[in-house]
Amino acid sequence: MALGLEYRGTRYCGWQTQLAGCAVQDQLDRALEKFLGEKVATTCAGRTDAGVHAMAQVVHLDSEIERDDVSWVRGTNSNLPGDIRVVWAKPVASNFHARFSAIARSYRYLLLNDAVESATFNGLVGWFHGALDIDKMREAAHLLVGEHDFSSFRSVQCQAKSPVKLMHETSVASRATSVIAGETKGLMVFAFHANAFLHHMVRNMVGELVYVGAGRRSLAEFRRVLAARDRSHAAPTFAPDGLYLCRVDYPPEFDLPPARVRHPFDI
Amino acid sequence: MALGLEYRGTRYCGWQTQLAGCAVQDQLDRALEKFLGEKVATTCAGRTDAGVHAMAQVVHLDSEIERDDVSWVRGTNSNLPGDIRVVWAKPVASNFHARFSAIARSYRYLLLNDAVESATFNGLVGWFHGALDIDKMREAAHLLVGEHDFSSFRSVQCQAKSPVKLMHETSVASRATSVIAGETKGLMVFAFHANAFLHHMVRNMVGELVYVGAGRRSLAEFRRVLAARDRSHAAPTFAPDGLYLCRVDYPPEFDLPPARVRHPFDI
Repeated sequence: MALGLEYRGTRYCGWQTQLAGCAVQDQLDRALEKFLGEKVATTCAGRTDAGVHAMAQVVHLDSEIERDDVSWVRGTNSNLPGDIRVVWAKPVASNFHARFSAIARSYRYLLLNDAVESATFNGLVGWFHGALDIDKMREAAHLLVGEHDFSSFRSVQCQAKSPVKLMHETSVASRATSVIAGETKGLMVFAFHANAFLHHMVRNMVGELVYVGAGRRSLAEFRRVLAARDRSHAAPTFAPDGLYLCRVDYPPEFDLPPARVRHPFDI
Repeated sequence: MALGLEYRGTRYCGWQTQLAGCAVQDQLDRALEKFLGEKVATTCAGRTDAGVHAMAQVVHLDSEIERDDVSWVRGTNSNLPGDIRVVWAKPVASNFHARFSAIARSYRYLLLNDAVESATFNGLVGWFHGALDIDKMREAAHLLVGEHDFSSFRSVQCQAKSPVKLMHETSVASRATSVIAGETKGLMVFAFHANAFLHHMVRNMVGELVYVGAGRRSLAEFRRVLAARDRSHAAPTFAPDGLYLCRVDYPPEFDLPPARVRHPFDI
């Protein structure tokens, strides 16, 4: 069985189950056990960190129990807190694996660039108060496209076999009200689409892009940071608050439901 | 002094101070007292209900204490929880009154129209799972424009002197992924701009518009509900979750800061 999951990561210590029971997976596993009357093991597409959100996490599990798809959704949701929701459920071929079958992932990072943090989006958006040059950030983001060794944006805890990933697309969008002398204020959305991501990779790339936007790093320096393949050369990790796992792509034969808009900046 | 305020209403019993201390105003008054070292009385432009949010609440207060504008913002924010933020502060003429000087207000209602509630936007968006015809809802919303007696959308607790208000503009926008046979799924944004609003007016209008979209009410019936000037004719009050006070307009001579984008669907 495959499940599509949305969650707000603020209250949780990340996806991965912990002895303390503080993880999103702990909540899901408990809810599934109540619904099915048996323990099941869940595996997800992307293990999000503490405070990171998911619009479209994908999970698989093996169970002999048969229920219709709507019952899986409603039955599990009735046992989940309001900040975790099963959005869809679908039987999948036995060779489907949420993580290993995935061919690409999309992450978004939502950044408020204003003098004061967001109250309504508290925990749901990153924040930077200084002036940012969005054109320079776009140019830098574009340099990330292609196959690269992303070691400069890889956390020391990363367990990936290889630091080489293929970045399909990046973008930096803005819903700014005012652009004065190249200075954009307002809400920015960074999008990254790659075959896979390293641990902390998006938050580290965003940190580095903010350095570029703030004029602390030239494009030539940004290029050197990427080429250095050394974490110590890059900017600090940005806050988890603005990070969303927005889509996981699988080969068409698995026929999973398409992503749909559930959030103002979704997809 | 005038302050621009953003808050997430979820944890609060509304704007207005309560003995229990559970209101947004209680938090603000305590923060201002800590910052200024004296008690001040605050008055707001629009007294939002429990669970209702504000992107651009405006507040005024009288104090002899002089601080620069940035200190007002930072000093107050350092004493506020993360879901309430002073966004700007500006000295205003002594005849300025946050409520009585206001000439118009804008509210938004954010509605997720999907089979499952939102987890990331839990408490921040309304929800309706049935099919909605957005074109019919737009037509109905357009019928609200102009001067009307809005008694059909007025709560029994409303203390306004007159139920007659002037609706300047309404709109129903959609960030839908799919429109199939006139049926829109996804995120909807209702916008209302009027000289003033009655208690529960937006939530009651949204309830009625959802009735129209769901086919429970024809446009002719919607027109009769408005003309009836009787609350018992209209649909139930919609949830507070998706409601945001987005802008308050004042005469230009007060020269207050313009609203700016701080939220994905703002302004």
